Amino acid sequence: MLAHRLIERKRDGGRIEPGEWRALSLAYATGHVPDYQMAALLMACFLRGLDRAETKALMEGMLASGDRFQLSDIGKQRVDKHSTGGVGDKVSLVLAPLIASLDVAVPMMSGRSLGHTGGTLDKLESIPGFRTNLSLAEARAQIESLGCAMIGQTPEIAPADKKLYALRDATATVESIPLIAASIMSKKLAEDLSGLVLDMKRGSGAFIPELDKVLELADVMIKLGDDHGCRCVALVTAMDRPLGRACGNALEVEEAILALRGEGPPDLMEITYALGAEMLTVVDALPDIDTARREMEKAIGTGRAAERFQRIIESQGGNPGVVDDPGVLPQAAECELFQAPRRGFIARVEPKAIGRGIIEMGGGRTRVEDVTDPSVGFVITARPGDWVEAGEPLATIFARNRAGIASGRHALGMAVLIADEAEPPLPLISHRATIAGAELYRKE
Amino acid sequence: MLAHRLIERKRDGGRIEPGEWRALSLAYATGHVPDYQMAALLMACFLRGLDRAETKALMEGMLASGDRFQLSDIGKQRVDKHSTGGVGDKVSLVLAPLIASLDVAVPMMSGRSLGHTGGTLDKLESIPGFRTNLSLAEARAQIESLGCAMIGQTPEIAPADKKLYALRDATATVESIPLIAASIMSKKLAEDLSGLVLDMKRGSGAFIPELDKVLELADVMIKLGDDHGCRCVALVTAMDRPLGRACGNALEVEEAILALRGEGPPDLMEITYALGAEMLTVVDALPDIDTARREMEKAIGTGRAAERFQRIIESQGGNPGVVDDPGVLPQAAECELFQAPRRGFIARVEPKAIGRGIIEMGGGRTRVEDVTDPSVGFVITARPGDWVEAGEPLATIFARNRAGIASGRHALGMAVLIADEAEPPLPLISHRATIAGAELYRKE
Repeated sequence: MLAHRLIERKRDGGRIEPGEWRALSLAYATGHVPDYQMAALLMACFLRGLDRAETKALMEGMLASGDRFQLSDIGKQRVDKHSTGGVGDKVSLVLAPLIASLDVAVPMMSGRSLGHTGGTLDKLESIPGFRTNLSLAEARAQIESLGCAMIGQTPEIAPADKKLYALRDATATVESIPLIAASIMSKKLAEDLSGLVLDMKRGSGAFIPELDKVLELADVMIKLGDDHGCRCVALVTAMDRPLGRACGNALEVEEAILALRGEGPPDLMEITYALGAEMLTVVDALPDIDTARREMEKAIGTGRAAERFQRIIESQGGNPGVVDDPGVLPQAAECELFQAPRRGFIARVEPKAIGRGIIEMGGGRTRVEDVTDPSVGFVITARPGDWVEAGEPLATIFARNRAGIASGRHALGMAVLIADEAEPPLPLISHRATIAGAELYRKE
Repeated sequence: MLAHRLIERKRDGGRIEPGEWRALSLAYATGHVPDYQMAALLMACFLRGLDRAETKALMEGMLASGDRFQLSDIGKQRVDKHSTGGVGDKVSLVLAPLIASLDVAVPMMSGRSLGHTGGTLDKLESIPGFRTNLSLAEARAQIESLGCAMIGQTPEIAPADKKLYALRDATATVESIPLIAASIMSKKLAEDLSGLVLDMKRGSGAFIPELDKVLELADVMIKLGDDHGCRCVALVTAMDRPLGRACGNALEVEEAILALRGEGPPDLMEITYALGAEMLTVVDALPDIDTARREMEKAIGTGRAAERFQRIIESQGGNPGVVDDPGVLPQAAECELFQAPRRGFIARVEPKAIGRGIIEMGGGRTRVEDVTDPSVGFVITARPGDWVEAGEPLATIFARNRAGIASGRHALGMAVLIADEAEPPLPLISHRATIAGAELYRKE
């Protein structure tokens, strides 16, 4: 009866009270409200919206449905970074050890790839032996010793969100800003964070392409964090082209290791420093962005950050030799250059086509249960706006076999557009949002 | 994948094509589309609406999911009457034998009571021995011999509608005009009718109280009939007070028998003649309303209509003696007068309070599996607008025991409002609608 009344009220544009959201989340998590009633309610929420108090109560219901880290007693600030997902986005692999090496804890729980975007867990698991399925107790011990654990969401974290997300996926109710915000934040706040930095992707390769919606989502998430004593900052970054050069799990780990040595591609380094400086300042670990940036450069320059990554890998069962010799990563059987079919400007490098190409080649998933081949992918050196001559190398294709090479070649053919003119790409970082609102991003 | 795409499209305000509706209905009926996807789609349909072609395709999908009568070879016009439901509405019991006695076939499939409104099946089953669960073959044979069968919807009729209706009931998606229209018409058109008359109730006791929505529903249903070669006429009638005097299953059978003898209360006789005249003319069995009315009066005056009811009852296993002696119906153990607590005008006789009172007394259902006591109910002689003195009898309460009397007395106390002034009640019949549109009703 409760569910019916709430569906009816939301259907007619009314509000569901916090206590009702809590009762509903519990009843759904325990199977007392069936999927079909929740599905009808989700569609009503999708079409009628949720206000701030409703979004908060829904998020709290999901958060309360499961276990959480208890980290407030470890004597360190706890910060994480969340990205809304993109192609070539290996920033988490760089940031987690880098920030941990600066004495701020990073209790990082990540997801797997789904659709055209990559997932941090899949990237980490391309390191031979690396275990992402630590228990919360194991992860906590490692956070105490190394300042960081890089794990998957255990089944005990926000189970109501897992159940609800699967239902949203089946009922075309995923793309709702309050539902997305509540889902992400129910998992992030389970990390017991004092601060969170959001990397909000925009552009054709982003989950939400439009700037206004990206800013709206950031605003809802920032407020949810703020309501729970977790300070949040969001940067809006470009996903109209892949980030960095490497796209594909093992290739991205290799590029992340380069970045930890200060040798990553310029866009990857810039985003890493920008997000990292926000992480260090949002929890007041360092006084300002400039100081934070200098400290990060020092941690990278001295090798401290790379060494921290090595120790994390070792602690999680992986082969720490990967940091000195990325050759221990799975290697593709075939690789081949992709050359410019004509002269002109690189007008587009379309992330979705790249991401789908990797799936085609066996390196991604269309269903959660798919097994991926970590070795396949692309290293794309051509950047939007570059002038190229016909025959000039634009990318390298890494594949399992000749068919994979052909499929990668086809994907690059679709993704890379060469034209007589090229529109300027999106600014790498365009906006910065806090609880006080959003403004244009200015590099300090 | 099909369901997901269709949910998404309807969610965004798009159209689902006829072929897609057919595939979806089939997939849902066979369990290939789960309830939770259908629930999300129903909510999207509820909030976004369905156009005429979509409503038609949905209705056809439900119609095609089950068996239908095949009656076009019986050499008679086939007509039925459908009421959107009310309190005291026993018109079907009068009309079915009356119209059949005038050589037009009435293949009447009815429902059970649910909520505060009554159901024809429950009324019929108060006749000792009466079987409503004839097979389609038995019903067809009786239609050939007696021109009428009065049965329940067999499980083979529109099973997709049954499944969908249960889901709508659980997901607060019942009150949608296209969904209601498609549901009703998928069952009515399974009767293989050449004509259908709709009794569209309005007012506080109706499923849909508002005139504009009632007319909209009528319009959608008329068009669905028209699209299938079934001519439809709708009359909008008053349900701001009970119809006739008797409310309660056996009491209503008794009043229907009175009406078949021409001795029913004036409002019941007027609605019966008005709907019956539409039934006889919509299938061109008689040339005009006046002729139809005269023929009906003759069938009642000569006893032919009552005799036809007797033969139908006998053929369906019931005690035909009921027509001559309604005393064979179940009798309530207790009965008591209800008197006016003060002098004044009868301002309201609220059908919902009466209907709920009957449920309280054990004569209705709150769930489909409830067993009802046919003997309980009310005979209400007071009509809105009447002037009454304190202590004047307004109604008789029929109950199983003293507790039932008390509960009936409470219900009447809630239902009957006596005041110094009384607004005029709704006109008994206010509008008439056909495929050409709706107009004010004029008695001819």
